[in-house]
Amino acid sequence: VTNPPTNSPPAGEFALIDWIRSRTPTGPNTLLGIGDDCAIIRTTPGNDWLVTTDMLMDGRHFVLDRDGPEAAGRKALAVNLSDIAAMAGTPVAATVSVALPKTHARTIAQGIHEGLSPLARRFNVDLVGGDTNGWDGPLVISVTLFGTCPPQGAVTRAGARPGDQIFVTGPLGGSLLGRHLHPEPRILEAKALIESVPIRAMIDVSDGLVSDLGHILEESGGLGAALDLSHIPIHEDARLMSQADQRSPLDHALNDGEDFELCFVVGPEEAMRLKAGLHPLVLHHVGEVRSEAGIRIRLADGSVRSIVGRGFDHLRP
Amino acid sequence: VTNPPTNSPPAGEFALIDWIRSRTPTGPNTLLGIGDDCAIIRTTPGNDWLVTTDMLMDGRHFVLDRDGPEAAGRKALAVNLSDIAAMAGTPVAATVSVALPKTHARTIAQGIHEGLSPLARRFNVDLVGGDTNGWDGPLVISVTLFGTCPPQGAVTRAGARPGDQIFVTGPLGGSLLGRHLHPEPRILEAKALIESVPIRAMIDVSDGLVSDLGHILEESGGLGAALDLSHIPIHEDARLMSQADQRSPLDHALNDGEDFELCFVVGPEEAMRLKAGLHPLVLHHVGEVRSEAGIRIRLADGSVRSIVGRGFDHLRP
Repeated sequence: VTNPPTNSPPAGEFALIDWIRSRTPTGPNTLLGIGDDCAIIRTTPGNDWLVTTDMLMDGRHFVLDRDGPEAAGRKALAVNLSDIAAMAGTPVAATVSVALPKTHARTIAQGIHEGLSPLARRFNVDLVGGDTNGWDGPLVISVTLFGTCPPQGAVTRAGARPGDQIFVTGPLGGSLLGRHLHPEPRILEAKALIESVPIRAMIDVSDGLVSDLGHILEESGGLGAALDLSHIPIHEDARLMSQADQRSPLDHALNDGEDFELCFVVGPEEAMRLKAGLHPLVLHHVGEVRSEAGIRIRLADGSVRSIVGRGFDHLRP
Repeated sequence: VTNPPTNSPPAGEFALIDWIRSRTPTGPNTLLGIGDDCAIIRTTPGNDWLVTTDMLMDGRHFVLDRDGPEAAGRKALAVNLSDIAAMAGTPVAATVSVALPKTHARTIAQGIHEGLSPLARRFNVDLVGGDTNGWDGPLVISVTLFGTCPPQGAVTRAGARPGDQIFVTGPLGGSLLGRHLHPEPRILEAKALIESVPIRAMIDVSDGLVSDLGHILEESGGLGAALDLSHIPIHEDARLMSQADQRSPLDHALNDGEDFELCFVVGPEEAMRLKAGLHPLVLHHVGEVRSEAGIRIRLADGSVRSIVGRGFDHLRP
């Protein structure tokens, strides 16, 4: 008799999430469980709730001494709003839990509240509860955000088909220079989009375009994509960072996390309608979904290269 | 011209929560916001959701090295289930976010999942999402739990009236000896109760009976209570702890936190029906609601003393 193989989860954040997902059966109330930007839960037909949650830690997602509690609080709500945007949902209510360094607990709590309140008001999010704790460790903020689905149904990551066209809502890369602290949640943009064309799949760019587009392709059945370098919108910050490190601006645009723009996929005809500009959004048409797995990019000289995904792994040392 | 008074929050956890609450306007979707065991949010009439959240930290709510990740994970879900029980609700779905010490991130994540999964299955809770992060700090677990309201309507803290009778669902005190790690969420008990009599107000004993009953009295309009020492169910653990410290078993029963029994209030006639025992629950009738503010206790010799509330303040150094 040999021992069964150990059931330990594999290394890496996404592998760990897959491990948890595979061991987490859900019941009929869960229309969509672990693995998308939001979950969808239902108690009565026609009344589905979007739920998303993010935990931000000092030194990891912000630096309290440098950025201040207001920026930390604002970001904690903003990244959750971005997840609701990625489903084309409407945010409704949030809970905010904090582990506060005891020495300045009140000041930090106040700053967090003052940082996120204006954003909550702007997007009609009610702050309905939370949990307030002091401790000897660094600041942790955990926000859970609830929202409603659009009448067209929430947009998941799974729905892309070969021949679909890939868009992003803004320039990418270099968010670490500061943009990551005050992302602009694309709630209204997503609403405007879904009211103009059917969106097949959508995600927010939190781990990097290659990684996040990769999630869409994987969840849509192991598809691939062809990107066109000349159409990737590279943020000025990516160029600035490129001057300071050994990585190209394109590398930053493809692999940096926390841009919080939307990456979405529509059918070919819908793509033409979007490009005809019958809407107020600045959109960037970056490539096409292909049946062959893997992401390839066409460079300026016409040559094509495969991209080995990187993105941001929260468990990578 | 003088500067306006500073708007800094006052000292203490409850004062801080009041400060946040007073600065947090809510919209029509929020039927009940900050300040109860759960919030109640609505998008369409008749479809109300209960939401509650708790954040647990290593060294504060558990000791990872001593208790292990399974106990930490189990407790993180259990305390949220207890909040749903306190509203007489039915749990539906949860999100679980973790800040994992990087050196053992996978093992800890696995333990947390294995600790809370059986409890989730037992109470039909779908685990629908979360956030998984590694860092250099201690373990933090944040669970948000959603549920539905009972047909009778959720039971809040605000509803007690003078003359109402006060009950608890089990013996109190000394949970620090270990019981606090595996509380029994009183979901089914609350359901059985609300199906047998109208419950005017309810709370779970997380900060200590005096503190939590105090929340009911305060939210019900500044009422008071008269407790009877001979009827306070004192847990054997309170007696054990009393042998080791300078505090009486009664002090432990009145002021220790994390018992996670329910404290509830019913009208005088309903109290008689409950005491007639036409239900399978073991209930302890501990006292009566009074119009005069403050909590008093009648001792064995018939004398009456005022109790100065203590309870557990998460921000107290």
